[in-house]
Amino acid sequence: MNIKMLKKLLEGVRDGRFDTETALKRLKHLPFEELEFATLDTHRELRQGFPEVIFGQGKTVVQMKAIIKSMLKRKENVLVTRLDEAKGKALKRAFPKASLSPVSRTLFIKSHAIQPAGRGTVLVLCAGTSDVPVAEEAAVTAECMGNRVTRLYDVGVAGIHRLLNRKEDLWEANVLIVVAGMEGALPSVVSGLVSRPVVAVPTSVGYGANLGGITTLLAMLNSCASGISVVNIDNGFGAGYVASLINRE
Amino acid sequence: MNIKMLKKLLEGVRDGRFDTETALKRLKHLPFEELEFATLDTHRELRQGFPEVIFGQGKTVVQMKAIIKSMLKRKENVLVTRLDEAKGKALKRAFPKASLSPVSRTLFIKSHAIQPAGRGTVLVLCAGTSDVPVAEEAAVTAECMGNRVTRLYDVGVAGIHRLLNRKEDLWEANVLIVVAGMEGALPSVVSGLVSRPVVAVPTSVGYGANLGGITTLLAMLNSCASGISVVNIDNGFGAGYVASLINRE
Amino acid sequence: MNIKMLKKLLEGVRDGRFDTETALKRLKHLPFEELEFATLDTHRELRQGFPEVIFGQGKTVVQMKAIIKSMLKRKENVLVTRLDEAKGKALKRAFPKASLSPVSRTLFIKSHAIQPAGRGTVLVLCAGTSDVPVAEEAAVTAECMGNRVTRLYDVGVAGIHRLLNRKEDLWEANVLIVVAGMEGALPSVVSGLVSRPVVAVPTSVGYGANLGGITTLLAMLNSCASGISVVNIDNGFGAGYVASLINRE
Amino acid sequence: MNIKMLKKLLEGVRDGRFDTETALKRLKHLPFEELEFATLDTHRELRQGFPEVIFGQGKTVVQMKAIIKSMLKRKENVLVTRLDEAKGKALKRAFPKASLSPVSRTLFIKSHAIQPAGRGTVLVLCAGTSDVPVAEEAAVTAECMGNRVTRLYDVGVAGIHRLLNRKEDLWEANVLIVVAGMEGALPSVVSGLVSRPVVAVPTSVGYGANLGGITTLLAMLNSCASGISVVNIDNGFGAGYVASLINRE
Amino acid sequence: MNIKMLKKLLEGVRDGRFDTETALKRLKHLPFEELEFATLDTHRELRQGFPEVIFGQGKTVVQMKAIIKSMLKRKENVLVTRLDEAKGKALKRAFPKASLSPVSRTLFIKSHAIQPAGRGTVLVLCAGTSDVPVAEEAAVTAECMGNRVTRLYDVGVAGIHRLLNRKEDLWEANVLIVVAGMEGALPSVVSGLVSRPVVAVPTSVGYGANLGGITTLLAMLNSCASGISVVNIDNGFGAGYVASLINRE
Amino acid sequence: MNIKMLKKLLEGVRDGRFDTETALKRLKHLPFEELEFATLDTHRELRQGFPEVIFGQGKTVVQMKAIIKSMLKRKENVLVTRLDEAKGKALKRAFPKASLSPVSRTLFIKSHAIQPAGRGTVLVLCAGTSDVPVAEEAAVTAECMGNRVTRLYDVGVAGIHRLLNRKEDLWEANVLIVVAGMEGALPSVVSGLVSRPVVAVPTSVGYGANLGGITTLLAMLNSCASGISVVNIDNGFGAGYVASLINRE
Amino acid sequence: MNIKMLKKLLEGVRDGRFDTETALKRLKHLPFEELEFATLDTHRELRQGFPEVIFGQGKTVVQMKAIIKSMLKRKENVLVTRLDEAKGKALKRAFPKASLSPVSRTLFIKSHAIQPAGRGTVLVLCAGTSDVPVAEEAAVTAECMGNRVTRLYDVGVAGIHRLLNRKEDLWEANVLIVVAGMEGALPSVVSGLVSRPVVAVPTSVGYGANLGGITTLLAMLNSCASGISVVNIDNGFGAGYVASLINRE
Amino acid sequence: MNIKMLKKLLEGVRDGRFDTETALKRLKHLPFEELEFATLDTHRELRQGFPEVIFGQGKTVVQMKAIIKSMLKRKENVLVTRLDEAKGKALKRAFPKASLSPVSRTLFIKSHAIQPAGRGTVLVLCAGTSDVPVAEEAAVTAECMGNRVTRLYDVGVAGIHRLLNRKEDLWEANVLIVVAGMEGALPSVVSGLVSRPVVAVPTSVGYGANLGGITTLLAMLNSCASGISVVNIDNGFGAGYVASLINRE
Repeated sequence: MNIKMLKKLLEGVRDGRFDTETALKRLKHLPFEELEFATLDTHRELRQGFPEVIFGQGKTVVQMKAIIKSMLKRKENVLVTRLDEAKGKALKRAFPKASLSPVSRTLFIKSHAIQPAGRGTVLVLCAGTSDVPVAEEAAVTAECMGNRVTRLYDVGVAGIHRLLNRKEDLWEANVLIVVAGMEGALPSVVSGLVSRPVVAVPTSVGYGANLGGITTLLAMLNSCASGISVVNIDNGFGAGYVASLINRE
Repeated sequence: MNIKMLKKLLEGVRDGRFDTETALKRLKHLPFEELEFATLDTHRELRQGFPEVIFGQGKTVVQMKAIIKSMLKRKENVLVTRLDEAKGKALKRAFPKASLSPVSRTLFIKSHAIQPAGRGTVLVLCAGTSDVPVAEEAAVTAECMGNRVTRLYDVGVAGIHRLLNRKEDLWEANVLIVVAGMEGALPSVVSGLVSRPVVAVPTSVGYGANLGGITTLLAMLNSCASGISVVNIDNGFGAGYVASLINRE
Repeated sequence: MNIKMLKKLLEGVRDGRFDTETALKRLKHLPFEELEFATLDTHRELRQGFPEVIFGQGKTVVQMKAIIKSMLKRKENVLVTRLDEAKGKALKRAFPKASLSPVSRTLFIKSHAIQPAGRGTVLVLCAGTSDVPVAEEAAVTAECMGNRVTRLYDVGVAGIHRLLNRKEDLWEANVLIVVAGMEGALPSVVSGLVSRPVVAVPTSVGYGANLGGITTLLAMLNSCASGISVVNIDNGFGAGYVASLINRE
Repeated sequence: MNIKMLKKLLEGVRDGRFDTETALKRLKHLPFEELEFATLDTHRELRQGFPEVIFGQGKTVVQMKAIIKSMLKRKENVLVTRLDEAKGKALKRAFPKASLSPVSRTLFIKSHAIQPAGRGTVLVLCAGTSDVPVAEEAAVTAECMGNRVTRLYDVGVAGIHRLLNRKEDLWEANVLIVVAGMEGALPSVVSGLVSRPVVAVPTSVGYGANLGGITTLLAMLNSCASGISVVNIDNGFGAGYVASLINRE
Repeated sequence: MNIKMLKKLLEGVRDGRFDTETALKRLKHLPFEELEFATLDTHRELRQGFPEVIFGQGKTVVQMKAIIKSMLKRKENVLVTRLDEAKGKALKRAFPKASLSPVSRTLFIKSHAIQPAGRGTVLVLCAGTSDVPVAEEAAVTAECMGNRVTRLYDVGVAGIHRLLNRKEDLWEANVLIVVAGMEGALPSVVSGLVSRPVVAVPTSVGYGANLGGITTLLAMLNSCASGISVVNIDNGFGAGYVASLINRE
Repeated sequence: MNIKMLKKLLEGVRDGRFDTETALKRLKHLPFEELEFATLDTHRELRQGFPEVIFGQGKTVVQMKAIIKSMLKRKENVLVTRLDEAKGKALKRAFPKASLSPVSRTLFIKSHAIQPAGRGTVLVLCAGTSDVPVAEEAAVTAECMGNRVTRLYDVGVAGIHRLLNRKEDLWEANVLIVVAGMEGALPSVVSGLVSRPVVAVPTSVGYGANLGGITTLLAMLNSCASGISVVNIDNGFGAGYVASLINRE
Repeated sequence: MNIKMLKKLLEGVRDGRFDTETALKRLKHLPFEELEFATLDTHRELRQGFPEVIFGQGKTVVQMKAIIKSMLKRKENVLVTRLDEAKGKALKRAFPKASLSPVSRTLFIKSHAIQPAGRGTVLVLCAGTSDVPVAEEAAVTAECMGNRVTRLYDVGVAGIHRLLNRKEDLWEANVLIVVAGMEGALPSVVSGLVSRPVVAVPTSVGYGANLGGITTLLAMLNSCASGISVVNIDNGFGAGYVASLINRE
Repeated sequence: MNIKMLKKLLEGVRDGRFDTETALKRLKHLPFEELEFATLDTHRELRQGFPEVIFGQGKTVVQMKAIIKSMLKRKENVLVTRLDEAKGKALKRAFPKASLSPVSRTLFIKSHAIQPAGRGTVLVLCAGTSDVPVAEEAAVTAECMGNRVTRLYDVGVAGIHRLLNRKEDLWEANVLIVVAGMEGALPSVVSGLVSRPVVAVPTSVGYGANLGGITTLLAMLNSCASGISVVNIDNGFGAGYVASLINRE
C-alpha cells in the first residue's frame, strides 16, 4: 500500500500533478511510515503459518474475547497462553471449537490448517512431573507454529538411566527444549549427548533455597556443556518460540 | 572397534570358541564401553569440521602447549580462547603458524581447511566498543566452526538510527548474536526487527549498579521480545558455539 | 506571625517593657520556631498551585475522609493516589464532585482552578499495556500540578517503529517520563532521540527473573544514554512530581 | 544535504531525468538515511554549547589522543572523565592547554568559549570528604555544559546544622545535585528544604554492609521526600548532564 | 536448692552417711545442674521487675491462654506481642483485666506494680505514621519493663524542622529508639544531635526497591553517625528490650 | 530378567537359532537396558527396608491415592511427606490403617515390619518450638527407614544450659540432625560437643532479615565447627534420609 | 559567644543604639548560627573526656598529620583508626609520643589524662583469632573514651566450655561487645548468659558463602536472644563508641 | 585429673581435713572445670588417630612454625591446609620431613603412623580439572584421618559416559565426596547411582553468573536426589572431615 502511495506520488510529480515542494512535505513523514510497513512485512513473513499469541495472565475474559474475535475475522490461528482454569473454561464456552489444554494452560483456535514449518523434530524434555505444565506450554507453542514435537518427560538426572534409555529420541531431534527445576542439571547432561542446539527453561519448581527459580536459572547459565542457551523462568512459550525459529527452513 | 569386538565375540560363541558364561562375563562391562563409543561417535559427528577448543583461562602455557601438540598430531584444528596477552605471545612463539587475535583473546591453528558448515550468515552485533572483545570471541568461534560471519559493531540503542541504517544486514542473517553490556536493550530491539533466532550475550561492561553483568543478564532474560535466548555473562565462545549449531545444515 | 512576634519582642526591649534577660530567654526557643516558619514558607511557595497529596495505600477510608475534609476547608486541591477499587468508590460516594480514575488508582478534588505551572509539555510514554496504571499515575499527578500532559502508550522497543513514528511528540516535550517493565530499555532509546531530561520509572511488570521490578530498575540505572534519572519501582507519582518541578517556570 | 538530495531526486522525476522505478529504488533506502540526519539534527541542537565527552575508563592514552585530535579539528570543546592519574598526566603533556583536575579525574580542553546555557544555578552538595571526587565530576560536567555551579561540601546529616546554616544557597539553586555515600540520607533532607528538582548520586563510599554503593542507591530510591530522582552509583557525570538538561532554557 | 543439696551431700560425706564413690557419682551430673541454676539465677536477676514476654505470632489462642495462666499463677506480669486483631480480642475476653493495645498489637496483664527500673527517659521517635505500630511495640515494651517513655512521632527527615523543634526532648532522653522505614535516615540525624546511645529499628514500610525493609536496615548500618546500633526489621520489642537494659541502673 | 534374556540370546547364537547379525542388532539396545537393570538393582539394595516416599506438596488427593494403591500392591511401606491438614485427613479416611502425624505433616502406611537398619541412634535436636514440624519430619523419616530415633527439642543457644544438661544424649548418638531457624547457631555448638557427623537443617522460621531461611542456611554453611554438612531449608525429609544412609550398617 | 552577641544586640536595642528593623534583619540569620552553637555545645558535652577520632582509611599521611597537629593545638586527645602498617609507622615517626597498636590498627596520642567515664566494665569478647583486630579496635576505642575494658578472646561457640569457664567475667561487665565472624553465633550464647546489653560486631572473616560478612551480620540480626543490637561489619570503632555511650554515667 | 581432685576433695571432707564450707567454695568453680575436662575427653576420643589441623590462610609462617613445633612436641600428626606456594616452601624448609602437596595446598607431618579409622573407602569425585585442588584437599584430609581414599576426577556431567564407565568405583565406596563448580549437577547424578551418603562441595570455579560459587552451592542444595548434604564453597577440608566422621567405625 505504502509502496503504491509512494509510486503514485512519484508519478504525480512526473506528470506535474504535484510540485516538488508538496512532494517533499509529504515525504517528510515517509521514513517512519516506510519503516512501519517494512517492519510489518518482516513480521508478516515471520509469522507465516504462525498463530497470533495472547499472553492470558493479567487479561480479563472480556479483553481476551475482543482480541480473539478480531483475530478470527482476519482468519488467523489464535494461541492463548497462561490461562487459569476459570478463564480457560469461559473462553471455551465462548469459542466452542477451541481446543483447551488445562495442563499447559493454553487454548488454541484453528482458523486454517497449520503450515508445517520445521526442518526436523522439536524434542521437549522435562525432569520431573511438576515441570510438565511449562514443558507442555513449550510443546503446544511449537506445535501451533508448525513443528513436529516429541515429548520425553520425567527423565531427571537422579535416575540417569531413564534418559539414556531414550537415546534414539535424543539423536533424532533437530532442536531440544529441556525444562527443569531444582538444580537444573538436565540441560548439561542432554547437551553432552547430542549435537544440536539445546534451549533450556528453568522452572520455579523447588523448595527452600530455590529462590523462585533463580537458582535453577543461574545453574543453567553456568552449564559446563556448550550448546545451551537459556530463556526466562517458566517461559515455556519463549522456548517454544525460539525453538520454532531455529527449526524453520 | 567395539562393534568389531562384539561381532567377534558373537562369532566365537557361534563357533563354539567361547562358552556362554565367558561371553556373559565379558558382556557385563559392555554397556559402558558401548555407551562410550556411541557417545564418542555422536561427538565426532558433532565436531565434523569443528575445531577442538581449549579454554585458556587458568591454564599454564606448558599445559596448553602439551594439549595443542597432541591435537595437532591428530590433525585437528585448534582454537584457544580466553588467552591473556603474555600467554598468547608465548603460544604464538611456540606455534608460529597460529593466527593470534589479541582483541578476541583467541588463537587459531589450522591443520586442515575449515569445512563450510552453515546454512546462512551468522551476524554478530555489539552495542559499544567495550563489548568488542566478547563479540570478537563469538565471531572467531563461529568462523572457526565453518560459518560465514558478518560484524555490526557499535550500534547501541542510545543512537538507534545507526542500527536501523543497517537493516539489510539484519534481514540477511540466519542467526544473530547480540552482545551488549549496561542495560542490555539491544537484543530486544534487534529481535523486533528480524524473524530469526537471536542469541544474546550480556557483558560485564558497566559501572555502579551493574553487578558485574548480572543486571544486563537479568534484563536480557526479561526481554519483551520473543525469539531471544541467553548465554552466560561474557560467554562469547558459548554464543558462537550455539549459533553454529543453529546454523548447521 | 513569628516575625511579628519577634518584632514585638524587640519593640518591647526598645520600649523597656522587657529586660534583656527575659528577651534572651524567649529567644532561646526561637531558632526552631523560626526555622519552622521559614521552611513552611518555602513549602507554601513550592506548592503554589499544587494539590495536597494523600498516599492512599495503607490508609483506611475513615482516615482519608478526615484528611480530605480538613484540606477542603483550607480550599486546597486534593489528590489521592494508590486507591484500590473499593476505597475509591467509597471516597467517590463521600465526595461526589471528585473525579475518580480507576486506571491510575487516583482521585482528584478540585477546590479551585489549577494554576498552569509548566514551561512546556510533559510527555508520558509507556512500553506495554500493563505499564499503563503507573504511567497514568504519573500523568494525572503532572496534570493536577498544572502541566500540559501528552500520553504515548504501548511503544515498547520490540516494535521500535511505533516509537519512531511519533518523533514529533518526542521532540516537542519539555520533560519526558518513560515508564517500562521487563528489560527497561525504553528510556535508553527515547533519551537517544531527544535533548530534554528523561525521568525513568521501572514497573514491577514481568515474570520469572524480574524480581518484582529490581531487574528493570537496575537496567535503567545502567542505561548507556546520558540524560536519564530514575525513581523507585512503580512510583508514578514520584515521576510526575519530579517532572513538574523540572517543568516549572 | 539529504533534503537537498531528495529535492534533486524529485526534480529529476519532474523533469523526466529519472523514471519512477529508479526513484522508487533510491527511496527504498531513504527512511534510514532520513532518520539519521533527523536524529543528528536533534543531537546537534542538543549539544549546542555542550562539549563532546569521552569516558576515559578502559580507554588507552593512544585511543583517547586520537579521539581528542579529531574533536579539536571540528573545533569542539572536549571533556574527558574517569581519568586515572597516569593517563591524566599523559594527556596533559600531549595537550598542554588542557586543564586537568585530579580531584574530579577530568580533563577539559576549550576550543571556544562555553556558551552560558542555564536558567539558574546548579548547586552540588556532598555529604563527606570522600564523596568529593564524584561531586567534582558532577560540578565540572555542569560547568563545561555552560552552567553556573555552586559547591557545598561536607554537609552530612550527622551534623545537620552545617547544612541548615547554608539555607540561602539551597534556596537560590535551580537544580540540586546531592552526592552521598553510606546511608544516603542527604537528598531526603535537602529535598525537604527546597522546591526544586534534586538529582541524587549514590557513591560507593562505605564499609561493611555498604555493598559497593548498592545500599546507598536503594536508600535514595526509597526516599520519603518527593522531588528526587537518582542516577547510577558514582555517576557524577550523569548527574551533571541531567542537571544541565533540566537547567537549560 | 541445688546449693543446699550440695551442702547436704558434703555433710553426708563428712558425717559418713555417704561414701566418696556414691558422692562422686552424684557429682557427675552436677556441672550441668549447677550451670542451670546459676543461669536461672542470672535470668531471675535480669528480669526483676520485667514481665514475661510471649511472642504471639504463630501461636494459637489456646496455646497463649495456657502460657498466660501458668504465668499468672507465678504472679508474673505478662506481655504478649505481635497479636493480630482477632487473637487480641479473644485474649481480652479471656483476661478482662488485661490492657489491649491494637496499635502496638500488644496485650499487658499486670499482676503486680511495675518496678521503676531505668536511670532516665527512653525516647521513642518514628519517621512516619506507618512506623507507629513498631514504635508503639517498642514503647509499650519499655514501659512494661519499668521505664519512663516519651514518644515523638512523625518527625521524618523530609521535614527536618519538626524534629529540630523538639530538641529539648532529644536532649533529655537517656536512651533513644529511632524507628524508620524507607531510606532510614532518621537515626543518623538524631544521633548527630544527642550524646546518648541510639537504638535504630528499620521497618518494612516502603514500596518498590524497599525489599521488605532490607534497604532500610542496610542504610541504618551504614550510618555516617557513630553511636547507633541496629536491631532486626520491625523488631520493636527487641529495641524496647535493649533500651531497657541500657537504661537500667 | 535382562541377564536371562542375554543368556538366552547367547545360547541362541551358540545353538545357531540366531545369526550374529540379528544378535548384534538386538545387542545395540542392550547398553541402556543393562544400565537400567543395574541401576535398579542398586536402587533396590538401597531401599531395603526403606519405605517408598511421596512428596505430598503440589499433588492432589486423587493422584496420591493412585500412587499409594500401586505401592501397597507391591507390599511396600509408604511414607507421604508435606501433607497439609485437609489432604492428610482425606488420605487417612481412604487408608484407615495409616498413621497420620499432623505435626510432621506425614502419613505412614506399614505393609510389613520395618527392618532395623541403623548402627546406632539418630538424635534429632531443634532450637525452638517453631522448628518442631521440620524436626519431626526428619525424625519420622529416620524412624520409617529403620532407625532408633531420640528427640531433644527446644534447646536453643540463648539458654545454653538446657543443651548442656543433656550431654549424655548427645554423646550416645551415632548421627545428629540439628534443626534451627533464626541465627542457626545450634549446629556449631552441638558439633563442638560430639565426635559424630552433624546434619544441619535450616528452617524458614524467623522475622525481618531472615530472608525465608537463607540467613540461617548461610550461617550454618559458615559454621566455625568442622563435622557439619547442610541440607536445604525446611528439608526435614532430606536430613532424615541422609542420616539414615550414614547410620546404615 | 553567640549568646553574648545576642545579648549585645538586645542591649543595643534597649539602649537605642539599633532600631528594631536592623535588629530584625540581623536576627534573620540567627536561627542557624544559634543552632550551630547549640549543637556544638551538645557535642562538646558529649565528647568530654572523649578523644577526637580520625578514620584513617582513605586519608594520606599528609592529611592526617595536618588534622592531628590542629587537634593537639586544642589540647585534645587523638585517636586514629584503620591505619595500615606503613601509615602507622609514618605517623609514629612524626609523633613519637603516640602509642601505635598494629593489631588494632590504631594510634593514640594523649594530650591530657583520660577522664574515667564509665559506670562499669566494658567486656570485649571475640570468637576466633582472626577476629582480634576488630575486637582490639573496639577495646582501644572504649579505653580511649575512659572505660575500664576487659578482653576475653578466642571463646567461639564450637568449644563452648572455654566461654562458660569465664562466667565471672561475663557477669561483671556492664556492657558487652561481642565480635564474631562465620556463623556469628557468639552474641546469642553470650546474651543468654547475662543481663546487660550486648553490642554485636560481625566481621568479614569467613570463606565461601560468607559474602564478606553479610552472612554473619544477618545471622546476628536474627538472634534468638533479646538484648542484642548490631553495628556494621568490622566496625570495631562503632561498637566501642556505642558501648562507651551506654556505659557513661 | 579433675576427677582425682574431686575424689581427693571428698576424701578430705570425709576425713575431716576440709570443712564443708571450704569444700562448697571450691566446688563453686567446679561445673565449668568439670565441663571442660569432659568436653576435652570427648575431643580426645574424637581425634584419636586424627591429625591436628592448622588453617593456613591468614597465618604467617612464623605463627605456623610455632604452632607446629608445639604439636610435634606432643607427638601429634600435623595437617596444614590452605597454604600458598611461598608459605608451603618455607614450612617445607623448616620441617624437611613434611610432605608438601602443592595441588591440594596442604602439608602433612607424620609423627606416628596414621591409625586406619574407616569402615570402607572414601571416594572423591570431581567434575573438571579446575576442581582438582579442592578435591585433593578433601582427599588428603580423609587420608590423614586414616581413611582409604579413591579418586575419580574429570567426570563432569557433560560427558556422562566417563562417569558411568566407572560404576564399580561408585558402588564400592562407603562415603562419596563430590566436588563440582559451574552448574553443580554431579552430586545429583552420582547420588542417583549409589546407596551411600554423598557430601557435596561446591567450588568457586565458574564465570559470569557464577557469583563466586553461590550459584553452584544453591544448585546443590536444590538437588532432586535425596542422600546429599552440602558443605561450604571450596571447603575441601570440611568435606574430608565430615566424610571421615561418617566412615568411622
